[in-house]
Amino acid sequence: MRMTIIGLGLIGGSLGLALKKNKLEGLEVIGHDKDHEVAGKAQRRGAVDRAEWNLPRAVEKANIVVVATPVQAIGEVLGQIAPHLEPGVVVTDTGSTKAQVMAWARERLPDTVSFVGGHPMAGKETPGIEAADAGLFTGCTYCLVPDQRATEEAVKAIVAMVQIIGAKHLFVDAQEHDGLVAAVSHLPLVVSAALVTATASSPAWRELARLAASGYRDVTRLASGDPVMGRDICLTNRDNLLRWLDTYVEQLRHYRQWLQEANGEALGKALTQARDARDRWLANTDVETPPVEVGSFQETLSAMFMGDRLARRLSRIEKASKDRK
Amino acid sequence: MRMTIIGLGLIGGSLGLALKKNKLEGLEVIGHDKDHEVAGKAQRRGAVDRAEWNLPRAVEKANIVVVATPVQAIGEVLGQIAPHLEPGVVVTDTGSTKAQVMAWARERLPDTVSFVGGHPMAGKETPGIEAADAGLFTGCTYCLVPDQRATEEAVKAIVAMVQIIGAKHLFVDAQEHDGLVAAVSHLPLVVSAALVTATASSPAWRELARLAASGYRDVTRLASGDPVMGRDICLTNRDNLLRWLDTYVEQLRHYRQWLQEANGEALGKALTQARDARDRWLANTDVETPPVEVGSFQETLSAMFMGDRLARRLSRIEKASKDRK
Repeated sequence: MRMTIIGLGLIGGSLGLALKKNKLEGLEVIGHDKDHEVAGKAQRRGAVDRAEWNLPRAVEKANIVVVATPVQAIGEVLGQIAPHLEPGVVVTDTGSTKAQVMAWARERLPDTVSFVGGHPMAGKETPGIEAADAGLFTGCTYCLVPDQRATEEAVKAIVAMVQIIGAKHLFVDAQEHDGLVAAVSHLPLVVSAALVTATASSPAWRELARLAASGYRDVTRLASGDPVMGRDICLTNRDNLLRWLDTYVEQLRHYRQWLQEANGEALGKALTQARDARDRWLANTDVETPPVEVGSFQETLSAMFMGDRLARRLSRIEKASKDRK
Repeated sequence: MRMTIIGLGLIGGSLGLALKKNKLEGLEVIGHDKDHEVAGKAQRRGAVDRAEWNLPRAVEKANIVVVATPVQAIGEVLGQIAPHLEPGVVVTDTGSTKAQVMAWARERLPDTVSFVGGHPMAGKETPGIEAADAGLFTGCTYCLVPDQRATEEAVKAIVAMVQIIGAKHLFVDAQEHDGLVAAVSHLPLVVSAALVTATASSPAWRELARLAASGYRDVTRLASGDPVMGRDICLTNRDNLLRWLDTYVEQLRHYRQWLQEANGEALGKALTQARDARDRWLANTDVETPPVEVGSFQETLSAMFMGDRLARRLSRIEKASKDRK
């Protein structure tokens, strides 16, 4: 059983670490990164068993290929690996937008290969293999968008991978996914970065910086992410993000209006509603969502695809999550 | 030596805990809160030696009075305590805006009392005495705005208080302060709250909430603050905040424009500049700023005002920070 991770940044590296932590017998993880130094680091950190600098060779004999590069690079990578994938291989990605990625997969991958788009809703302030963390996906929602041509077994294999790294899978439609993440992931990125732009480009920035404290630090956190990844996310989800930016600016105008009118009542009400909505959301995300039924297919799948040891581990995970209910 | 803290929320409670942690001999901390239950909690948590429910009695025989209520209440509190303050008393506040507070102090306090406006640049997601923390002020910048009528000794006393709780004082003009915090503290609050309003008022909020993750959580953190405090801050710093909101919306329009044009170069450049500016800022805030010279006045001040034991403690703090240099 061989899995290849292409792109060994924060997400690819963390995926490798999370898989390796489970010491799955008979699973070999191959890593590839266009930056050889990054691939070397990933190997030294134990995120992959072996770094392979040649992309076609990296996917040779792989059962599962995970493309964890910035979104814009995914199309290119799919095109490059397509001729080297054996029939039956399962390909997935971790890109932040899905409609464009699904279109690339349909265009560029052969019919004999199953594509299951993926997007783990997890992140960190600091990008890169240095920040990779085996626990990054614990408890996170992991969106899955199976291509129409993907076999049932392929989908099950990716669900199994998601479960092993501690995440909760959620099947969504690509268009729906992109509309939703535009609001809760991409809009916050622009909101955060624009706040830094507005303050750091001020002539008073030196003085502003002395007074900026934890509030500023938190609201601007997303501005410290990888700018290439950020740019790609925005460009591949342009229409949704434009729509949400307009919605956001409209809300800012309401706040501005209340301020202008010194309308303490409306302002207080809006702030109270925002606090209550956020606090309810926080309370709900703390609650363990009931594990989605994955049923007894795991044994079949794993025996077929991943070896008996993994099948036993999956059964244990499944049993433990049922016991918690 | 008696100090009275009026308003025992996150800031007032943390101030009490930070002072008490130092076990300053001969210092009695009296606490008052209009909510008797809060005052009782503060006493049980050890943030104050004694809760006094009657405001005039709470400031009786106090040497220092700290008003740590939401900004809008500060004017009223100053008016209520004014007739009960003995000559020579030092009054300070912890309000997030300073121009309005300084005007209230000038109008409402007698000439015999010294007012030194204060604003610790520290905060937390959760408000209230429950979240109070002796370490809240460690390393934070603490703005001080002495009134023209304040005596040198009064200013020194508040500087000493700031040092004891582990903060770094910074003298600023009230107008300058309000202009600066509008950008790095009040604008982030509105940016954060408006993001919750925009998303949580959407018909898709149920689905959005499932996908919202750590990025959304951080950017919206300030929306979970006390809405009364937030409203007061906005209203007492209206003109500055309006100006900064306009600057911010202008930057959002630039981002929107680049998106619309699919201008990856401009978008990538802006994101890179934002990341670099924030990373430089983070690196600088980590560096210990050299302690401001407080000189030998501490002995004089403390002997006069706070007793010999405090004087010795201050000398040790001063010596330790010099040794670090």
